[in-house]
Amino acid sequence: MDSFHKLADLFREFPGIGPRQAKRFVYFLLARDSTFLSELVRRIGTLQSDIAECGSCRRFFQKRGSPLCAACADPNRSDAELIVVAKDTDLDAIEKSGSFSGRYFVLGGTIPLLEKKSSQKIRSKELIQLTEKKAKAGTLHEIILALSANPDGEHTADELRKMLSPIAKQYSLTIATLGRGLSTGSELEYADSETIRSALRNRSK
Amino acid sequence: MDSFHKLADLFREFPGIGPRQAKRFVYFLLARDSTFLSELVRRIGTLQSDIAECGSCRRFFQKRGSPLCAACADPNRSDAELIVVAKDTDLDAIEKSGSFSGRYFVLGGTIPLLEKKSSQKIRSKELIQLTEKKAKAGTLHEIILALSANPDGEHTADELRKMLSPIAKQYSLTIATLGRGLSTGSELEYADSETIRSALRNRSK
Amino acid sequence: MDSFHKLADLFREFPGIGPRQAKRFVYFLLARDSTFLSELVRRIGTLQSDIAECGSCRRFFQKRGSPLCAACADPNRSDAELIVVAKDTDLDAIEKSGSFSGRYFVLGGTIPLLEKKSSQKIRSKELIQLTEKKAKAGTLHEIILALSANPDGEHTADELRKMLSPIAKQYSLTIATLGRGLSTGSELEYADSETIRSALRNRSK
Amino acid sequence: MDSFHKLADLFREFPGIGPRQAKRFVYFLLARDSTFLSELVRRIGTLQSDIAECGSCRRFFQKRGSPLCAACADPNRSDAELIVVAKDTDLDAIEKSGSFSGRYFVLGGTIPLLEKKSSQKIRSKELIQLTEKKAKAGTLHEIILALSANPDGEHTADELRKMLSPIAKQYSLTIATLGRGLSTGSELEYADSETIRSALRNRSK
Repeated sequence: MDSFHKLADLFREFPGIGPRQAKRFVYFLLARDSTFLSELVRRIGTLQSDIAECGSCRRFFQKRGSPLCAACADPNRSDAELIVVAKDTDLDAIEKSGSFSGRYFVLGGTIPLLEKKSSQKIRSKELIQLTEKKAKAGTLHEIILALSANPDGEHTADELRKMLSPIAKQYSLTIATLGRGLSTGSELEYADSETIRSALRNRSK
Repeated sequence: MDSFHKLADLFREFPGIGPRQAKRFVYFLLARDSTFLSELVRRIGTLQSDIAECGSCRRFFQKRGSPLCAACADPNRSDAELIVVAKDTDLDAIEKSGSFSGRYFVLGGTIPLLEKKSSQKIRSKELIQLTEKKAKAGTLHEIILALSANPDGEHTADELRKMLSPIAKQYSLTIATLGRGLSTGSELEYADSETIRSALRNRSK
Repeated sequence: MDSFHKLADLFREFPGIGPRQAKRFVYFLLARDSTFLSELVRRIGTLQSDIAECGSCRRFFQKRGSPLCAACADPNRSDAELIVVAKDTDLDAIEKSGSFSGRYFVLGGTIPLLEKKSSQKIRSKELIQLTEKKAKAGTLHEIILALSANPDGEHTADELRKMLSPIAKQYSLTIATLGRGLSTGSELEYADSETIRSALRNRSK
Repeated sequence: MDSFHKLADLFREFPGIGPRQAKRFVYFLLARDSTFLSELVRRIGTLQSDIAECGSCRRFFQKRGSPLCAACADPNRSDAELIVVAKDTDLDAIEKSGSFSGRYFVLGGTIPLLEKKSSQKIRSKELIQLTEKKAKAGTLHEIILALSANPDGEHTADELRKMLSPIAKQYSLTIATLGRGLSTGSELEYADSETIRSALRNRSK
């Protein structure tokens, strides 16, 4: 197989990219000037040495001498709340909302509802260790399981709650999950019963 | 114009029906047996005499001697809470959720965000009258504005709150709106900042 | 069940209408004035007596004393070509294109590719009878099978060709199918091989 | 801005990639092992030196010592027909159909219907030169303008026909365009009048 198709095959492994778009990427690169290509090559080549996994929350961040990301290193953020998210982009969405100033932990995935062996790929051990360390330090009060409102997210929240409950009891920690209700744009007519029930329970007075 | 197109033109006025589907409806009726057509004619013909608007909540209901619908006539439902919805289908969705046993009021529409003259078509006067009557009776404690989480719904809730606030003050009524948060199926990554903020605020512990 | 839901159930039988839209139709009728409803009732009630099936091509048409539709009764249309379509709306599409001035026959359906017993519901017998009559009269030269370019359409064309071939041989009739090629809006890049092959074969010089 | 976002910005320039998917690509690369990344870097880095533009048809092809691509170098392909396509992927689609064994020319784009200055970016000069050379050699008989059946494609075909007509007259060349008709999957009911007209004209007997 030739250079064209070998590169197209690599692009096919990118998330959401089918064979047609993979080829289109190669044609796109063929049509670009060599400056773009060398910049792309340089950026991909140094990506993994430029970016590190935070030693505390496990998110990816730009290396700057510290083993900790900005949120974990920031002394002004509260240690009382720890938000657990499935992946980096979830953390980004929360940060963007500007509504949280505590600490984070990135699980690295969810526990699928329909799989036997759980806690294999996600960082549940690391979460327990971190929680225990923070609980012992006496600053942590609440763990917020910020998972998506879908089957895998809910299953993951259930499993994490079980795993964390001994520590939560021992150190009197609260374990919370995100509030359910009408999300922006939701029409009442099309809302499912669970959403309506939560929206009524969480009504703001 | 002939019978075919005249009937197709009537179907085009049905909600969500374009010219093509309107014609398809006519072909469908031509292919059905006369029993179906006479049943359809009979049902449409008696609809407005069979169905009445409830004298209290204004929803449509099957006439059965009483001027009130089942929910308004039911002595076991609480008079303490009144849910205000835009339309009948919103009320159906709440009833289906089984999470409310108070009373209802159907506005008959929303107040569009971008229109000048408000409260023209919707039953805001009737709502104020009903609220006042129920408040005077001393049983009503809370009005829940159950509008959709979109611009028109939010604008309507804002306007209703203004209209109702004098009565609410006078009779110490609470005015609430539906809780915001992740609705069923929402992925955290794609949630907007307002939804995340609400989901954090309404987190269940 | 009440009048509301009984009427909604009738609307659910309309092509392409689900439970939600069926209910919306009933709410729509409840909100309309009685003039609209009585007009609708009148139009549905007289539909089957106003519209007849053409004695020759079997399409539906407005009754006007003649047992034949306008296209079949028109002495200026050519008897040399007969287009066979699956349904009335296909005939409408061809008429709208203004590119045919011969005669039509409406099969009343297609022969599904994956069903055993063919020619059961469609009017294949009537087609054969009509073809034979027109062929004996000496005016018919070509039968154009105007079926959709999908599996059921192609299967129907194949089956009709088999059924009609004895008559076609006996009376030297041509049997044709619609030309394949790029349809309006088709992009070459996404065209399948069969379409490209036809587009090259049918290229206009 | 950091390495993460700089790389995401480069991916945003890829065809069809928005800001969210661009970020997802970077997270994907962070999660892959270094073997994948170095392979990707190597393939992108050598792409433009591995792939050349064919000296005759202008398509991209894997360099192998010859300035001509396989189709242009193949002595068994006919020189009598020349297909003109807008882009490489159109040529790929025709080759995949296995229905053409002549020569190709890649324009490198189309002439937009709504732009003033035409023939600026596409290789119209090169097409004219190539056509003249092949016409003088006496082997070329037909130019097939294989453009998409959309406004830009049709406009491009019209413009090319004008440009090529002097040479076509001088050397008695035929200029053809792709046949129109029902493309695979087309339903007659939804076909536009132009497609139906072409499908009737190009009917196969």
